[in-house]
Amino acid sequence: MPETHARRRASLRTSLRELDLDALLVVDLLNIRYLTGFTGSNAALLIHAADEHRTLFCTDGRYLTQSAHEVPDLERVIDRQSAPALAARAGKEARPYRRTGFESQHVTVDGLDVLAEAAGEQVELVRAPGRVEELRMIKDEAEVESIRMACAVADRALAGLIEHGGLAPGRTEREVARDLDNRMLDHGAAAPAFETIVAAGAHSAVPHHGPTDAVLHPGDLVKIDFGALVDGYHSDMTRTLVLGPPADWQRELYELVAGAQAAGRAALRPGTGTREIDAAARSVIEDAGRGEEFLHGLGHGVGLEIHEAPMFSKASDGRIAAGMAVTVEPGVYLSGRGGVRIEDTLVVRDGDPELLTLTTKQFLAV
Amino acid sequence: MPETHARRRASLRTSLRELDLDALLVVDLLNIRYLTGFTGSNAALLIHAADEHRTLFCTDGRYLTQSAHEVPDLERVIDRQSAPALAARAGKEARPYRRTGFESQHVTVDGLDVLAEAAGEQVELVRAPGRVEELRMIKDEAEVESIRMACAVADRALAGLIEHGGLAPGRTEREVARDLDNRMLDHGAAAPAFETIVAAGAHSAVPHHGPTDAVLHPGDLVKIDFGALVDGYHSDMTRTLVLGPPADWQRELYELVAGAQAAGRAALRPGTGTREIDAAARSVIEDAGRGEEFLHGLGHGVGLEIHEAPMFSKASDGRIAAGMAVTVEPGVYLSGRGGVRIEDTLVVRDGDPELLTLTTKQFLAV
Repeated sequence: MPETHARRRASLRTSLRELDLDALLVVDLLNIRYLTGFTGSNAALLIHAADEHRTLFCTDGRYLTQSAHEVPDLERVIDRQSAPALAARAGKEARPYRRTGFESQHVTVDGLDVLAEAAGEQVELVRAPGRVEELRMIKDEAEVESIRMACAVADRALAGLIEHGGLAPGRTEREVARDLDNRMLDHGAAAPAFETIVAAGAHSAVPHHGPTDAVLHPGDLVKIDFGALVDGYHSDMTRTLVLGPPADWQRELYELVAGAQAAGRAALRPGTGTREIDAAARSVIEDAGRGEEFLHGLGHGVGLEIHEAPMFSKASDGRIAAGMAVTVEPGVYLSGRGGVRIEDTLVVRDGDPELLTLTTKQFLAV
Repeated sequence: MPETHARRRASLRTSLRELDLDALLVVDLLNIRYLTGFTGSNAALLIHAADEHRTLFCTDGRYLTQSAHEVPDLERVIDRQSAPALAARAGKEARPYRRTGFESQHVTVDGLDVLAEAAGEQVELVRAPGRVEELRMIKDEAEVESIRMACAVADRALAGLIEHGGLAPGRTEREVARDLDNRMLDHGAAAPAFETIVAAGAHSAVPHHGPTDAVLHPGDLVKIDFGALVDGYHSDMTRTLVLGPPADWQRELYELVAGAQAAGRAALRPGTGTREIDAAARSVIEDAGRGEEFLHGLGHGVGLEIHEAPMFSKASDGRIAAGMAVTVEPGVYLSGRGGVRIEDTLVVRDGDPELLTLTTKQFLAV
């Protein structure tokens, strides 16, 4: 998709000119992947603010062949010290890149010294945090398609797990998690999107419980939070099921969280404040007197990272826009008894959001 | 192991006093794990240079229970902004921690601003890179035991793979990699140590080849580079096998690399320079006229990270010491034909090094 990457670089150049920069030195590998398609483990990118032909890409000799294939459309520099090598080029060009921005949220204090020494006197290194991340918040359709595929892989894996009796009393949390991970790989995931959470019984009341050798028992709530990685993009879904007929308290808890989750999804309209979206779901839980047991934010952006901007919480700022891919995941956790979390991945659209995780949100008893 | 962590903190305090620091703010999660045993995803640690009782640990509310269990021996602060919270404490103590070091190789440029504002006027933030990493280079016996277990898991997984016909023509690289990963999990690995490399035929000539759907063919060299994660510690091993009777060129290539690898292992004596160790193996390959086809350094330290200090390469500095856990992994890559790499994980000891990866280095035809 060289056109896609060229389009993204053009958007970035606009943003750089607004900051009166000659160039931006990009060092974050995900930002580089977003702007070039490069998937290796060492690279830097020097984006010229005015002229695509003066943009430079750098990686090391291990990626000679791979970078020729993945980044055919940019001048390539081969150097193991990729970011300093490009900083040096910024200073040595016939027309030096005098005001060169750098990602001050990624470059370390020691790393900046190395860059400054390489760049030399001709170049002023200017803090320019978050320029690429800001672009990445709005997904183009190729990105949405990758996230949609990652969600479909997770949907299929969970359906297969349930259908083949994978959620049976006597299995351990760890066995269930591995079964689910293998099913995602079978359906084409490159990897799980993060360490799969399977939390049974009282463990379901721990928001981020790593799977253990604890055994599933009849009557347990089982909370499963998982996702797939496809083409570098993540999906994120949580479902909470019950083993056998639910108790009244389990059903009430589930209905409460499901209602809050629906309210959160309904609030996903372009222009809405992120805090307002959090509040839409949180108020449902607070009205039921359970506000203290909803221990985390409502959701987050998802894309090349499993957690990225925007964030939905009591303290978050900003507004959402069409094209953002986000999660909505309220939870209520009754310590020592059990908890329920329900989470979808969705894309904000003009009008209703598009739901990407299609597994039912009916309270499943298996 | 609270005693182990207390002992490590005591060693660090000695190093801080040599730098005339009142305290060190540790933000790297692996360094924090090393010094406290904490395994969560958000933490900071403020080590007082003189007084263990003035050392502070911070994490957020999600880890209230976990941190009480894992870090019972330090005063805990609960705050989502863990590093700024401790920087603020450094400034607000009755006797402020005036000269507080920070990990300038980990703290970002923007992050330092936040720390400085939190710390206030009373505190001078001083660059102190690599203090904990320096301690981590020498493994104590508990760490060696974890690495030994991780190596044993990998040995058993590979033995099982071979024994059960897992390396048969017709299987894909990806299938073999998944089989091996699952066997490591069966033997107790928390996860693979990194993305398992299975590279067959001409792919074996690519040093870091991710597994594909390419099928294994009779006569192929198959290079397998993999490891297990146990208790947070990594193992790293490469073996190259051949499917069926080897051709003469394959046998010659193998013998060359095996000879270089043996020379590299023999050079692992305390006090030897890291460049000298690289040269011990590299000269064998250069003498055979293959120096240009050995494309990378000879090895690296291994521990809480898969790649950590020391590094063995033509450009590396420093000397090794007893207690370092390292890899020795020469490779020769014939582009378009195939490559051989042989890698062990070992511990430097007084006298001969201790070999932790015990799978045979005979040229296996399966």
